Amino acid sequence: MIVLGIDPGYAIIGYGVLDTNKQNMLLDYGAITTPKEDSMPIRLENIDKSLKYLFDKFKPDVVAIEELFYFKNQKTVIQVAQARGVILLACQKYCGNIYEYTPLQIKQALTGQGRAEKAQVQFMVKAILGLNSIPKPDDAADALAVAICHSQSSPMLNRNRV
Amino acid sequence: MIVLGIDPGYAIIGYGVLDTNKQNMLLDYGAITTPKEDSMPIRLENIDKSLKYLFDKFKPDVVAIEELFYFKNQKTVIQVAQARGVILLACQKYCGNIYEYTPLQIKQALTGQGRAEKAQVQFMVKAILGLNSIPKPDDAADALAVAICHSQSSPMLNRNRV
Repeated sequence: MIVLGIDPGYAIIGYGVLDTNKQNMLLDYGAITTPKEDSMPIRLENIDKSLKYLFDKFKPDVVAIEELFYFKNQKTVIQVAQARGVILLACQKYCGNIYEYTPLQIKQALTGQGRAEKAQVQFMVKAILGLNSIPKPDDAADALAVAICHSQSSPMLNRNRV
Repeated sequence: MIVLGIDPGYAIIGYGVLDTNKQNMLLDYGAITTPKEDSMPIRLENIDKSLKYLFDKFKPDVVAIEELFYFKNQKTVIQVAQARGVILLACQKYCGNIYEYTPLQIKQALTGQGRAEKAQVQFMVKAILGLNSIPKPDDAADALAVAICHSQSSPMLNRNRV
């Protein structure tokens, strides 16, 4: 099964693609970026187009995406949530099989503890995928973490289908 | 010029369509609603489809949309902002000419004062458009208010092109 993990954002959207039938074989990872000079509607349109390209290329069976939680900065949360809406719409249009995980669930799945540091999660992404180094940028490593979280969750118990 | 005003939301999205070449002649108003039983990605897809229908029907030259401000409830702001992202994307894809106005600007344009009550704004929507009653639901009246705000703003001074 092909799992596309997404770390939502508006300036940088991390993504990671795994084949869970082949022991979480890493197919691709990276980040969609949108220039800050562009207006928000144009950035949102570019996010939609870039995601369509990824869906066409990898034809994921499932999308795993991080849930959005409290931010201190109200303006930032609005901008990230606007982009996350566009990302959810793309996932619905181009795949239709979407699962959401909280940061706590992702940390728990990768390290065994919900209060793990970011560095521990990234170390486990590298270890589980058998890589020589931690994937960069951080947003791509975070996207791979949510994809691994989905592949390691029990289909009967822990998965949060949207 | 055809102006489409939008009051963003995820459960109810108000809209109003004016022809400013004919003294703000009212062409249509109403609300897109999404059932709460549906998942958020399905609701977002329905918002996109409903907006596409409106854009196809009225072919607006311009969209005027209310800016999103602080909410007390962090979960609500995330959900509304997610829908607003989808709405902005639809406006960009189907029109490309988008203006944003703050609640203060809308109140100022319709009543002459930024601290006007909601009821005063709705009364002015009814008066300016020469209607017999205030348009319902409130979301549609709010959408007409932002469309009127755009049509009454000075093209040189006050318009906030996104």
